[in-house]
Amino acid sequence: VPDRITVQEADLPQGTVEIVTIGDELLLGHTIDTNAAFLSRELGQLGFRVIRRCTVPDAEAEIANAVHAALERAQVVICTGGLGPTQDDVTRAAVASLFGVQLDVNAELLAQLEARYRLRGIPMPARNVTQAQVPRGALVLPNPRGTAPGLVLVRGDQRHCVLLPGVPHELRGLTREQLIPYLVGLAEKTAQAAHPIRYRVLRTTGIAESAVAEKVDHLLTKLLPLTVAFLPGFAGTDLRLTCWGDLPELEADRSLDSAANQVRQVLSDHIYGEGDDELAAVVGGLLRARGQRVTIAESCTGGLLGKLLSDAPGASDYFEGGVIAYSNSLKHSQLGVATATLQQHGAVSEAAVREMAQGARLLAGSAAAIAITGIAGPTGATPDKPLGTVWIAACLNEQTQTRRIVFPGDREEIRERAAQAGLALLWRLLRLRADAAPTTETRIPR
Amino acid sequence: VPDRITVQEADLPQGTVEIVTIGDELLLGHTIDTNAAFLSRELGQLGFRVIRRCTVPDAEAEIANAVHAALERAQVVICTGGLGPTQDDVTRAAVASLFGVQLDVNAELLAQLEARYRLRGIPMPARNVTQAQVPRGALVLPNPRGTAPGLVLVRGDQRHCVLLPGVPHELRGLTREQLIPYLVGLAEKTAQAAHPIRYRVLRTTGIAESAVAEKVDHLLTKLLPLTVAFLPGFAGTDLRLTCWGDLPELEADRSLDSAANQVRQVLSDHIYGEGDDELAAVVGGLLRARGQRVTIAESCTGGLLGKLLSDAPGASDYFEGGVIAYSNSLKHSQLGVATATLQQHGAVSEAAVREMAQGARLLAGSAAAIAITGIAGPTGATPDKPLGTVWIAACLNEQTQTRRIVFPGDREEIRERAAQAGLALLWRLLRLRADAAPTTETRIPR
Repeated sequence: VPDRITVQEADLPQGTVEIVTIGDELLLGHTIDTNAAFLSRELGQLGFRVIRRCTVPDAEAEIANAVHAALERAQVVICTGGLGPTQDDVTRAAVASLFGVQLDVNAELLAQLEARYRLRGIPMPARNVTQAQVPRGALVLPNPRGTAPGLVLVRGDQRHCVLLPGVPHELRGLTREQLIPYLVGLAEKTAQAAHPIRYRVLRTTGIAESAVAEKVDHLLTKLLPLTVAFLPGFAGTDLRLTCWGDLPELEADRSLDSAANQVRQVLSDHIYGEGDDELAAVVGGLLRARGQRVTIAESCTGGLLGKLLSDAPGASDYFEGGVIAYSNSLKHSQLGVATATLQQHGAVSEAAVREMAQGARLLAGSAAAIAITGIAGPTGATPDKPLGTVWIAACLNEQTQTRRIVFPGDREEIRERAAQAGLALLWRLLRLRADAAPTTETRIPR
Repeated sequence: VPDRITVQEADLPQGTVEIVTIGDELLLGHTIDTNAAFLSRELGQLGFRVIRRCTVPDAEAEIANAVHAALERAQVVICTGGLGPTQDDVTRAAVASLFGVQLDVNAELLAQLEARYRLRGIPMPARNVTQAQVPRGALVLPNPRGTAPGLVLVRGDQRHCVLLPGVPHELRGLTREQLIPYLVGLAEKTAQAAHPIRYRVLRTTGIAESAVAEKVDHLLTKLLPLTVAFLPGFAGTDLRLTCWGDLPELEADRSLDSAANQVRQVLSDHIYGEGDDELAAVVGGLLRARGQRVTIAESCTGGLLGKLLSDAPGASDYFEGGVIAYSNSLKHSQLGVATATLQQHGAVSEAAVREMAQGARLLAGSAAAIAITGIAGPTGATPDKPLGTVWIAACLNEQTQTRRIVFPGDREEIRERAAQAGLALLWRLLRLRADAAPTTETRIPR
């Protein structure tokens, strides 16, 4: 463990954060780290900038080294994980040793732990006692959702080290209820100079990354000091405008407003939302505003479209449900797809998807419907229906639009893109109130 | 950019890897990094051990510093991201500068790029030319799925730096087709001393992390040098047994077999699979073996259960589909849930879930059915039906079992846990061929 280094307070890199995520499961690839992204988003809103993050194994020396190096660069170091009750949870010990302090059993925490188990009628496992241990001098952040509290240690040079449990919903609760108020207080106390980082994300669908970039190219120098980034994903290409703390908050917001408007002018047909907006929730919002509901029929996506439509709280305002017609038998019996259609054109065909959508709409008499049928693979492709061929249909009142798309990627990607395309088709109908457009084939370019 | 440092070849940390993921979107929390976990899993299988990973912004100096530091510790450094066609993609330039070499346009790559666009009838955007640039002396790993190839640079001291595009399906394809054969050759050439890391994951459902740990506690010292880790998640608690390269491959496998058997003896009721096994696929496999099929009825999970059941290729062997009965109207009209049931007991009740499951089973005459109805929140809770209350039912032939569970967590967690519990209920019926068990209430302890 390295020695502590004395740093002048004047050198304090105010408003900077590093995240150290701890766990062999992360380095072995057994678990995907979602906590770091959550923390980054929340902290960015406060004007704290995550300048780096790293992942280390469940090993005291590695944890101590990584935290030490991070504390040399950032004002605040946030560690996640390794606070559980099992023998591979060594974060407390590593950080106590780095700070040169002892671990004490905190009587209040121990009593809370015991009460927690008593309430549930379960005896407290002996090993949970470690979760009542606190590095001497550390601040305890109560965690009503779990057995490991958060902990804050402060070095003499005002560098902060925060320990949070790795269980995602506990970490999220602790961050919102305890960490954020603490950091707000810290920023006020140290008269933090940096302005918040402000960014705005415009979300597009149905257009490739390089096409987005070309359309926006002429704006790039004009928008400085705002930067523009292009972020392709299954849901479409996101476009992020960022003001990196160069401007005061209000001025930054005005610049971002103006930039967003300029981008919207060149990409208006494709932008369905901003920030965390999900296309499913945007479609839901349009339906809610019109007092209409949607019913769905899914084949290759197997329930994914319904899952997306019901992700948002309050989805019952606009989402009726529908049929997962994975088998042809359910396509016929529940949605009324004609046997002749299935025999002559196959289940992946314009005729089938049209009958699926119309059948779905009739299930509950809803105004809108979406249907999806396709070949997600890895098997099932034919020369005229290659892997990734998907037919989608959307109905709004008496109007039905269909579309054939051949998606790249593997089974998961094809399914994700197909569900998104189904939502996009209804979104266009809802937004444009367009007359029936001709069926077109699109191939997503790379 | 730091100077190069000469290291003796004898010091080469053979078999170690660091991963550097690059992108402002990762540090801002806009995107969750799934590539690092994928790479870790694939490389672990080859005996390469990921000792650390870090994430840096789209900034040349930061990238160069991180890659330099990683090259001092590890034999192989893998960078992901920043190879796209837009102005924020600076990985090529950063690494070329670190290695002190120029970027040249590679004529063959340029021709391939142009051909790729010609085939699609789209003119190549001018900015894509940057994707044909190669640091002088680098090996090109062809990428048939996208426009950015992988690149490998080798330092004089045999440290390797690999650049891969950040688009997940491109990265996965390049890794399997190009990177792995390259690293296998490298391991052979350098007569790598370390044995592969071998690990085995046992997946449990319906039991809390601390209960798993208590049951296994007496084995921990007995199993050394194998280590045991406990990994709680929405799908249940995974238990990972790891042999960290101390033993030759065959011996490691024998030790792991023996350890897994000992663990199975104390946790047999809860272990549904190993490794990447998903409970939905395990249930599917049991159904396939019996020549049976499952039909589902989902309310609060809105399609998630169907999505899980259809994630695996070949799911049509056992998955019929079903009804997303998000509204009460569809519960009645499509599944035959009695209006009286909904009025007297409500949609979240044992009577409703039982009728949903039985209605689902009748839709296509399948042997098995699963139904889920619950309060995923944030609204809809009542004093006797708190947030997270979920009723699940599973049918197998004439047998129906129901269960009430109150899940902790937010909407997403409740939905994920509910879908998993629905699968677990059918799994027990399929596995144990048990007689109808009494309805029980379970509360997942933390």
